Amino acid sequence: MERDWLQYLETLLGTPSRGVEIGVGDDAAVLAATSRRMVVTTDALTEGVDFRLAVDDAVLIGRKSLAVNLSDLAAMAAEPLAVVVAVVLPKQSPRATADLLYRGVRELADEYRVAIVGGDTNIWDGGLVVSITAMGLAMPRGVWRRNGAVVGDRLLVSGPLGGSILGHQFTFTPRVREAMWLNEHCDIHAAIDISDGLSLDLARLVSASRCGAVIDVASVPIAEAARQLKGAPLEHALGDGEDFELLLAIPPETAAHLVAAQPLRDLFGTTLFDIGECVTDAGMWLRDATGLTPYAPRGFLHDGV
Amino acid sequence: MERDWLQYLETLLGTPSRGVEIGVGDDAAVLAATSRRMVVTTDALTEGVDFRLAVDDAVLIGRKSLAVNLSDLAAMAAEPLAVVVAVVLPKQSPRATADLLYRGVRELADEYRVAIVGGDTNIWDGGLVVSITAMGLAMPRGVWRRNGAVVGDRLLVSGPLGGSILGHQFTFTPRVREAMWLNEHCDIHAAIDISDGLSLDLARLVSASRCGAVIDVASVPIAEAARQLKGAPLEHALGDGEDFELLLAIPPETAAHLVAAQPLRDLFGTTLFDIGECVTDAGMWLRDATGLTPYAPRGFLHDGV
Repeated sequence: MERDWLQYLETLLGTPSRGVEIGVGDDAAVLAATSRRMVVTTDALTEGVDFRLAVDDAVLIGRKSLAVNLSDLAAMAAEPLAVVVAVVLPKQSPRATADLLYRGVRELADEYRVAIVGGDTNIWDGGLVVSITAMGLAMPRGVWRRNGAVVGDRLLVSGPLGGSILGHQFTFTPRVREAMWLNEHCDIHAAIDISDGLSLDLARLVSASRCGAVIDVASVPIAEAARQLKGAPLEHALGDGEDFELLLAIPPETAAHLVAAQPLRDLFGTTLFDIGECVTDAGMWLRDATGLTPYAPRGFLHDGV
Repeated sequence: MERDWLQYLETLLGTPSRGVEIGVGDDAAVLAATSRRMVVTTDALTEGVDFRLAVDDAVLIGRKSLAVNLSDLAAMAAEPLAVVVAVVLPKQSPRATADLLYRGVRELADEYRVAIVGGDTNIWDGGLVVSITAMGLAMPRGVWRRNGAVVGDRLLVSGPLGGSILGHQFTFTPRVREAMWLNEHCDIHAAIDISDGLSLDLARLVSASRCGAVIDVASVPIAEAARQLKGAPLEHALGDGEDFELLLAIPPETAAHLVAAQPLRDLFGTTLFDIGECVTDAGMWLRDATGLTPYAPRGFLHDGV
């Protein structure tokens, strides 16, 4: 890391936080010892794929870069602790871009009391890349996996889906607090965050859990934005992605209680929706008044590597 | 993370390692609880700045991407534990590129028993970026800082310097084992790895330690490659960078013992060179038969952000 950037970061990032013994400014950061397990995730956002620098607010690009990583921690029910941020900046006004990006990262980091403990920057001939690694701490009751769903589990989502391209992709709330609360108070069998679309991420969850799923079409919460787009709102809700809501597999009694009592609504303004259930047969079905229709997952498929 | 990539990574990366409870394949990895402090660093390498994909071997680009991070951990005297790898791939044959890159990362990771616990990939219209975050564990005697040098300390480097552009930049050995041994057996006041050039990194170390440095010109070990390049070999040794040798500030008696006994030579084939000392006045001087000459640090200065 270069000196100028370090000094800039040190100024911007301020004083070390809880759990951080050495922050930005040496060859590496040092996190205080803890008896808790460390949860680690990394996500890089790239120009033209995850945002357009010429159009989108760089503050929001920075925010999103952190938010997607916090959403991954939430999907594991981990408590966010610290992040490191690597940015690759285009040659055109890199300092101004970095400043806005970091403002967005920092505002969200402050909101979740996450320390920014390291950074690396490059300037080059190409587009903008923001690569963040987030570290969190496992909760006493353990992390959530994708593979723990069992037949009969209800499937709940933490908010309306679809149309995130109209703005939600930049402004969504990573469901960190909701996940920590649910982890502490309820028995959750499996979890994933909806990044590539409900149907695709649900397919991942049930595939990892070796079961299948039925989605009750009438119960899928559809975001207002999904109705503003061309095409069937339901298809947007099933496939758009970048919702960053939690998708949870929960034992039926717990699920019924959560949907009736809605404890997250008073606490965080978040509503849980029951959208279906886990079934024995592998695969996915849509259920409506006419019965069951097999459904092939569709969503944001990255170019296959 | 996409499914194909995950499955590919899971196959490539194999079974979880010591200290890893959950590796690649869920929303995040989980590291086993430890009573040791966690040391974290991140470094992104970019096409055209750190390598040229059209010319350089992608296996070596992958190796370098990990090696620079391990070198940062070595500079803190941390024991490498796990890494996460984010890659942004050009559209042309991304799978082939990823395969070679990961081979290089994995070979070095295996050598240092580092687990690859997470990955993220993107394909885009731009050049190649490899962004790695490395996590290590602090040793019982604590981490090394840049700011602990005191006046009178000897300055030692762990190998010859300069000319790394001829190949050493890709094939260097991160001084992880050397650092762990020295941390355990010796009193080391301050450390940094030489990434941007001896004079620049030494300036960082003495500036953080609020002292200055005198470099004994005749004692600077000059790499054979530095002599093959145009220009004065000493200038290459002082300024080329990407040597990734350790620069250490060590109390005089310990330093004298290390240079006389060369314990790292038998253990790891590594020779320590005494190149000068820490002095009271801020700044840097070259000392030769004619006396002291002030020296302004020069090296690989990233474009100022």
